[in-house]
Amino acid sequence: MCSSGDTARMRAAVVTTPGGPEVLEIMEVPDPVPGPDEIRVRVTHSACNRADIMQRLGGYPDPVQRSHNILGLEYAGFVESVGERVTRWSVGDRVMGIEAGGCNAELVVTHERMALAVPDSLADDEMAAIPEVFITAWDALVAQGSLSAGRWALVHAGGSGVGTASIQIARAIGARIAVTCSARKADACRDLGADLVLERSPADWASQLRDAVPDGVDVVLDVVGGDEVDRNLKVVRTQGTIMQVGLLGGATASVSTGLLLTKRIHWIGTTLRNRPLEQKIAAVQRFAAEMMPLIANGTLRPVVDTTFALDDIADAHRHMEADANVGKILLRM
Amino acid sequence: MCSSGDTARMRAAVVTTPGGPEVLEIMEVPDPVPGPDEIRVRVTHSACNRADIMQRLGGYPDPVQRSHNILGLEYAGFVESVGERVTRWSVGDRVMGIEAGGCNAELVVTHERMALAVPDSLADDEMAAIPEVFITAWDALVAQGSLSAGRWALVHAGGSGVGTASIQIARAIGARIAVTCSARKADACRDLGADLVLERSPADWASQLRDAVPDGVDVVLDVVGGDEVDRNLKVVRTQGTIMQVGLLGGATASVSTGLLLTKRIHWIGTTLRNRPLEQKIAAVQRFAAEMMPLIANGTLRPVVDTTFALDDIADAHRHMEADANVGKILLRM
Repeated sequence: MCSSGDTARMRAAVVTTPGGPEVLEIMEVPDPVPGPDEIRVRVTHSACNRADIMQRLGGYPDPVQRSHNILGLEYAGFVESVGERVTRWSVGDRVMGIEAGGCNAELVVTHERMALAVPDSLADDEMAAIPEVFITAWDALVAQGSLSAGRWALVHAGGSGVGTASIQIARAIGARIAVTCSARKADACRDLGADLVLERSPADWASQLRDAVPDGVDVVLDVVGGDEVDRNLKVVRTQGTIMQVGLLGGATASVSTGLLLTKRIHWIGTTLRNRPLEQKIAAVQRFAAEMMPLIANGTLRPVVDTTFALDDIADAHRHMEADANVGKILLRM
Repeated sequence: MCSSGDTARMRAAVVTTPGGPEVLEIMEVPDPVPGPDEIRVRVTHSACNRADIMQRLGGYPDPVQRSHNILGLEYAGFVESVGERVTRWSVGDRVMGIEAGGCNAELVVTHERMALAVPDSLADDEMAAIPEVFITAWDALVAQGSLSAGRWALVHAGGSGVGTASIQIARAIGARIAVTCSARKADACRDLGADLVLERSPADWASQLRDAVPDGVDVVLDVVGGDEVDRNLKVVRTQGTIMQVGLLGGATASVSTGLLLTKRIHWIGTTLRNRPLEQKIAAVQRFAAEMMPLIANGTLRPVVDTTFALDDIADAHRHMEADANVGKILLRM
């Protein structure tokens, strides 16, 4: 075993009282201790995600019991120590991955089969821009949504981390992709290779999309919900799939169930965070087989918007809430 | 070829003006002519389905172009003639099956791979009580909903044709089933083998079901929609599936998308009628392999409520609209 003892402590971004960015504290908390099948990672970079805002506000608790309420869904760094049954990793290996929380910290503990090897081609700061958004986009569009060559995807928030990952993945597998975004992010989405860039609501993107893709899109990846739900039902093809990945537009919606029925639509809710370990490992391992080669050879590139020091995490959250970023907002430990 | 000539005519139940049961007319219309891969069936019995009411009201048109707007989604009878490329059937074979319309008639034309052989154990009138409801229930619960041994189904309208088929199918494959129904149909549902019989809304069936199945049901088959949608989302387990088969409660609904997302629910709209031929054949052939042996040996039994003569189809519709039936309402040609 590799416990550092009860007294060893690390720095981490902790929420003790729900609220705005100002409630975020950098605290010294006990080092996490790896179990026999786990590795402990010295984190060099982590990142911010929308789910962190919800957790900060008290609405999206970390499903894992930890000593403190530490933010952070992804990490990149190197293996600092290994549990006694670990066979895949050695101390010093460069790794990255997703966790249900606790990653905005100097140390993270993870099951050895949850970690991804970092290709030599990626710089230290870039690798933290990969795990959450590329796994989320690939899992929703490809693994669950069955997006494949020739088919059309629609992805809302094309300039977001998940959006920029989606554009690249769709192009890499021979699919076509339409995105919605604010006008200021349109050029960035085009530069990444989006086939169709639509101004987001209240602009009438649905009519434009139906004109361009009259038979409807095969897969929708939606982080908004709310009023977009009915538009998704209108633009998806018969037997198409809508992946509900987020609900920035609210947790209820008035829905044309008649469209769902007659078009035989599959509407699927999905999160990575709440899955049991075996499902997370299955997703990560399939992602490793299908997407990591394309990350290693540069076909898929991390899109970094800004990097903040961990001490400036409140500013990082303010930047995220201003919705001005294209791609990832990173944290440097 | 086996055309009977331009002048041959058959009797059929036709809608010329949308409206109540009184608009139904028994007319002489041209005999349908089989194509080279099709058979023509002399119908001995057909049946009534909820979709017929919608078609009668003008809201659910038959997707197939026919000489007249003939009701009827299923037939049973014997092969009267065969197209020149037909290999599976001979004149006189007993067959049954589903079509997109046109079955409340003396003759029906169908692709040879769409027809099911009728087991000797079934009487002529019984066989018309099989196709639509058993294929619908099996396709929704098992083929799409992945119901399997040990798992729980919830089926609304347990006393309906689809409901009585669902109860039997669930029991036959080792699954457990809860149904909602009106109080007067509860005993019939219990007698068929439902594990849990719940009084339908406005009774608080959802709370009773959650008490009985705290982890939630695996698959919901819902013909209602409307206010039942949110209750379905509440009682289905994490990663469970809701099959939306009908919308008797209305074509819109206010939906807790937050539940859909956090429970990672699959909500799937489904109809048999609007599918392309290849998908219908695939469903029928898999049904033949998996369910017909259980129909042949008596494990699954047709549930006949009443049989009307074709001339009395208006009375049959009135009976269906009164929602007093348990099982199928048949038509005798």
